[in-house]
Amino acid sequence: MYDFDADIADCARSIEVALDRYVTIEMLAGPGLPSDRLVAAMRHGSLNGGKRLRPLLVRQAAAVFGVRPEQALQAGMAVEVLHCYSLVHDDLPAMDNDDMRRGRPTVHKAYDDATAILAGDSLLTLAFALLASPDCHADPAVRIALVAELASGSGVGGMVGGQMRDIEGETSILDGEDISQMQAMKTGALIRASVRMGAILGGADARAMSALTYYSEAAGRAFQLADDILDVTASPETMGKATGKDAAAGKQTLVRQLGIDGAREHLAQTVNDALIGLRTFGPKADGLRATARYFGARKS
Amino acid sequence: MYDFDADIADCARSIEVALDRYVTIEMLAGPGLPSDRLVAAMRHGSLNGGKRLRPLLVRQAAAVFGVRPEQALQAGMAVEVLHCYSLVHDDLPAMDNDDMRRGRPTVHKAYDDATAILAGDSLLTLAFALLASPDCHADPAVRIALVAELASGSGVGGMVGGQMRDIEGETSILDGEDISQMQAMKTGALIRASVRMGAILGGADARAMSALTYYSEAAGRAFQLADDILDVTASPETMGKATGKDAAAGKQTLVRQLGIDGAREHLAQTVNDALIGLRTFGPKADGLRATARYFGARKS
Repeated sequence: MYDFDADIADCARSIEVALDRYVTIEMLAGPGLPSDRLVAAMRHGSLNGGKRLRPLLVRQAAAVFGVRPEQALQAGMAVEVLHCYSLVHDDLPAMDNDDMRRGRPTVHKAYDDATAILAGDSLLTLAFALLASPDCHADPAVRIALVAELASGSGVGGMVGGQMRDIEGETSILDGEDISQMQAMKTGALIRASVRMGAILGGADARAMSALTYYSEAAGRAFQLADDILDVTASPETMGKATGKDAAAGKQTLVRQLGIDGAREHLAQTVNDALIGLRTFGPKADGLRATARYFGARKS
Repeated sequence: MYDFDADIADCARSIEVALDRYVTIEMLAGPGLPSDRLVAAMRHGSLNGGKRLRPLLVRQAAAVFGVRPEQALQAGMAVEVLHCYSLVHDDLPAMDNDDMRRGRPTVHKAYDDATAILAGDSLLTLAFALLASPDCHADPAVRIALVAELASGSGVGGMVGGQMRDIEGETSILDGEDISQMQAMKTGALIRASVRMGAILGGADARAMSALTYYSEAAGRAFQLADDILDVTASPETMGKATGKDAAAGKQTLVRQLGIDGAREHLAQTVNDALIGLRTFGPKADGLRATARYFGARKS
């Protein structure tokens, strides 16, 4: 019997241990030795007790093909440090200007803006170094496919492009379709990449990749919708960061368009849509199923 | 007969044409479409008529093994957009706070700080996307080796780590050894990676890689030493950016330690050192030889 609570806890613990071991001066040495302060800022931005949902999706998608969790760990680390870099940069004063993240000062508050910019750049670069290492997978063709997938999902046609559209949306009127597109890039693209990277590790054929991509896009919409609902309904204490920010920033969200009840109904439909993408897979996809349901019932 | 002037001009032109074709909304589409403004900022930060010295080193190192220039173009583009990202972020107000670069407003002046941060992030991510594409090289093992090399040279143990040490150096006393180490990372690591990436494209064996690495490290020192000398001796008009900045920022450089004449003598020795690294190679290394001499005689 698949146990979601055990799976998410084990994944978060293994990522925390692996990052604690990897994000060190010794492990990050290249042609030169990293500065103490920069590595400390990278650790501040990545060793933070997050839920590690993206590595969870990598290993759950890999599990569909019988890949063991430890074989998906390094690819999961890569997606996670990439996610962490995006938070470090998004929190900067020139961007969202957030002081707190997961109940702690953000990197630029704990250090300074220049250090936060460089720590983000370092985490982004580290993501690709992790994928390029033979520790990630023995087959170079698999590793380079992971690089291509992560770069596509996180770049200007994905996550970063979505962040830009989000900023642009603060000063223009977006309709429901615009908002969906922006969110599909800002949050959805990296969730999509996580699932597809797990599928790449598992050697998915075109049909399986297509089904898992369908799942990942619906799961990403569910995750973002839950986030928008929590921004309205949850307390800052529960979330470990400021809430009510979207309304304050004049940001357009589907919650503003549909109302809370309408948004909750839409969320339930979206979770079902994600599950439909998994219908051809057996019990090995129970992890992905549980995560979609978890997105539908998020409390933080 | 090798013609350096023709080589550097042809390389710069081919990079400009390739970037002009590649850094567009159509080519950069991922799961979503990039925003017009972000792509425009990426173009501002990359299509700027630079000398494209790093792609030149990639193709010259590849030429040692008989690789044709067009086969080294995509890897050269990757190194160049990575270099461009580092300039966009270094110019930010939180970092070096530069208003002008190559005679034009820097990206954050032409757009805004948030756009410049995201344009830099996008160019960094694009570098790895370019290496991951089959257009770069047919063999996945070669492509993933290029990713590993670029990530190592540009990350926290290389270029970004050097930038951090440089910032830290403004508020502490560095001795000659500290300065050399910082510069070896900040500027040297990406020059080293460029040469080694050319060698990877050429299928260099361990002995050739070692010789070219020796060359690349001396060439990097020569390049930086010339930069430090020009910061003291050249006009802002010649350089297309502010000069005299190192002294104004209280930055430690070898020029301050050795004096102008001492620094020029040291530069000549360093160029000779680079040439020694090439002594086992025949005329196919004439490109690399000419570039080392060019670093020794830079006027801008």
